[in-house]
Amino acid sequence: MADVRAMCRKAKTASRELALLDSAQKNAMLNGLADWLRENQVVISAENDKDIAKARKAGLDEAMIERLRLTEGVVKGMAVDIQKVAALPDPVGEVFEKSILANGLRVRKVRVPLGVIAVVYESRPNVTVDAAALALKSGNAVVLRGGSETLHSNRVLAGGIRRALERAGITPEAVQFIDEPDRELVTELLKMHEYVDLLIPRGGAGLHRFCKEHSSIPVITGGIGICHLFVDDSADLKRAVEVVCNAKVQRPTVCNALDTALVHRAIARDFIPRLVAALKRDGVSFRMEAESMRELGMAGEESVTPAEEEDFYREWLSLTLGVRVVAGLEEAMAHIAAHSTGHSDGILTGSAANAERFQRELDSAVVYVNASTRFTDGGELGLGAEVAVSTQRLHARGPMGLRELTSYKWVVTGTGQTRP
Amino acid sequence: MADVRAMCRKAKTASRELALLDSAQKNAMLNGLADWLRENQVVISAENDKDIAKARKAGLDEAMIERLRLTEGVVKGMAVDIQKVAALPDPVGEVFEKSILANGLRVRKVRVPLGVIAVVYESRPNVTVDAAALALKSGNAVVLRGGSETLHSNRVLAGGIRRALERAGITPEAVQFIDEPDRELVTELLKMHEYVDLLIPRGGAGLHRFCKEHSSIPVITGGIGICHLFVDDSADLKRAVEVVCNAKVQRPTVCNALDTALVHRAIARDFIPRLVAALKRDGVSFRMEAESMRELGMAGEESVTPAEEEDFYREWLSLTLGVRVVAGLEEAMAHIAAHSTGHSDGILTGSAANAERFQRELDSAVVYVNASTRFTDGGELGLGAEVAVSTQRLHARGPMGLRELTSYKWVVTGTGQTRP
Repeated sequence: MADVRAMCRKAKTASRELALLDSAQKNAMLNGLADWLRENQVVISAENDKDIAKARKAGLDEAMIERLRLTEGVVKGMAVDIQKVAALPDPVGEVFEKSILANGLRVRKVRVPLGVIAVVYESRPNVTVDAAALALKSGNAVVLRGGSETLHSNRVLAGGIRRALERAGITPEAVQFIDEPDRELVTELLKMHEYVDLLIPRGGAGLHRFCKEHSSIPVITGGIGICHLFVDDSADLKRAVEVVCNAKVQRPTVCNALDTALVHRAIARDFIPRLVAALKRDGVSFRMEAESMRELGMAGEESVTPAEEEDFYREWLSLTLGVRVVAGLEEAMAHIAAHSTGHSDGILTGSAANAERFQRELDSAVVYVNASTRFTDGGELGLGAEVAVSTQRLHARGPMGLRELTSYKWVVTGTGQTRP
Repeated sequence: MADVRAMCRKAKTASRELALLDSAQKNAMLNGLADWLRENQVVISAENDKDIAKARKAGLDEAMIERLRLTEGVVKGMAVDIQKVAALPDPVGEVFEKSILANGLRVRKVRVPLGVIAVVYESRPNVTVDAAALALKSGNAVVLRGGSETLHSNRVLAGGIRRALERAGITPEAVQFIDEPDRELVTELLKMHEYVDLLIPRGGAGLHRFCKEHSSIPVITGGIGICHLFVDDSADLKRAVEVVCNAKVQRPTVCNALDTALVHRAIARDFIPRLVAALKRDGVSFRMEAESMRELGMAGEESVTPAEEEDFYREWLSLTLGVRVVAGLEEAMAHIAAHSTGHSDGILTGSAANAERFQRELDSAVVYVNASTRFTDGGELGLGAEVAVSTQRLHARGPMGLRELTSYKWVVTGTGQTRP
């Protein structure tokens, strides 16, 4: 069986070399990897086909199988994304705070890599390349552990990454790929705090919980979004329909898609029928409390079914939307505090006072006023790339880019100062 | 037995109220606590006497007993420190990054409290007050677990804090004090990741290790410093003696005190005898490799004894100094990389090139050029206060002040933007 400890130790050793690489060498490696992807589509495809065949044999549903597939378009997209990462500014070495103390000491805080990052992921094999590219660009070694359902795809991609490292004169030990399916190896990996500085799970809620509960390495939990928009009585209702529609429909299967619309009672009778009419054209179905359905005369509306309380604790990841009528801002914020995963929540309002109060009091990773929740994304919010969306509070919150894969050191320069 | 889960849940609930307090109310509470300390010295002293009597009965040595003692001076000092914390700027609400995106969205990153901080500490009862003051000032609730040897002292201080909270109109549930000595309660506390956002151990290496290995809450490890100064051949030797002396002698029992001096071979014969002569006046004794002792004619020097390899892995916390002769910068950096705890390490040199290389390549929380390691301290480096010195890499590294007890949220304000 794979010696996880030895792999993590090798990654740690490699991380010291990686931390001192200049940007040009890292970028040459990334561009080399992009070339390799373009040149090896046939090989990659053949390996991916083995995973697809196995998945089909195991009876996975077609939606799931689609997520495993590395089409020509997906591989080309991966190559383009890597070149984008290469073009991003290198966070390592950036001086982000400096001062001169009264005693003449010059103090600087300088960004350095975290060291070793472990990524445990499910399903999508492109994560192998994405995660490695972002970790390496920020000067970190990486230990990868993909899902057993994409073992062949991950293995060929990991091989390509190690080849690109070697060609750029960087130790291939910087990327460690655990290429055996045993679950035990994950449990072992989670205890390698001696060598691994950060653990990023990428997958469903179960994976995040498992990592959080069993890891002695700090874990970035996130990626699970029960997202809300509160439509205040002062909102521009036409625009509110557009924003709610965008948040729900533009890409319903992702974590920043809308799950629940909270609607101010004063406008519910006007707004909700318009919302239902607009969204059902896109195939959305609704869950609404029975009482509100009666009040609004929705009983005959086919797309609307009565909601159970637990429906408001669901991340739909599909074309279903919870709708709840609330008495006002106060009740909306209380509902969100009780049901949100702290990912992305917003208010649609014409009231500056309500906007201000919502932004101040609501404590989610990203708090919106008059915008779609779909903007919670490293690319959209100006980070250039995204490693994960953190819903935990330590180190980094919300979208994480390259900078969020770094630590810092204090550099203090004197002329022989001593402490009195 | 204390219901740790219920206490953590109460702290979490209180943390929501705390996050929204304005600075004036928090400062009034802190100043009230300082007053309470000044007015209740007799009561505090009487409780502390119970701990001292118990410690003496248990046969603790006098140095240990001294650390438990709350003299009038210590209590007054605690009151002064709290007033200093009250006077510091409030990090909560600070906007530290902002931008306007091409689509018109205004994006801000705003500091918010972490939520609930647990502090597990040993020995010094003043940590009860220090830790609570810093956590509360930064808007966090806190769960305190002190050592059994200061249970009476901690209990009376925790009572004072809760009273100060009540008088300032803040829920006293913001401070939870686990006032039973069972060790099991600590183990239970370490699993409360559902409610607790950060765990700060304050104590010896054993406590840090225990927390790191058993906690599902992110842990700030630190406070253990095997610190080095490398005296390069180009160093100003007179000044180098002063700096090494300061780093070793000024307060030898703390984590940023010097443990090992590495000396360039080219100046060893000149420098080491001067160093020994100067430091032994302050009672320092030395550990040096037998071979170097012979070469330097140190065999007859009473204060110098032969070093074992493990001596260079010791945090002395006393007036002992390891001395090793090295071939140059390269060997010095290799020695530090192998033996340091990544706390505070420095070079004394006249060479700008060597200084630059040392600062770039050495990866400790604080890297010094021509200065004493004793400056690694939140107060000295301009943070105003210090919660801990982190030697781990996530979230915060080196001295941690109020700002390092915060997280942030993204606040995004639009005019109805949707994602294309």
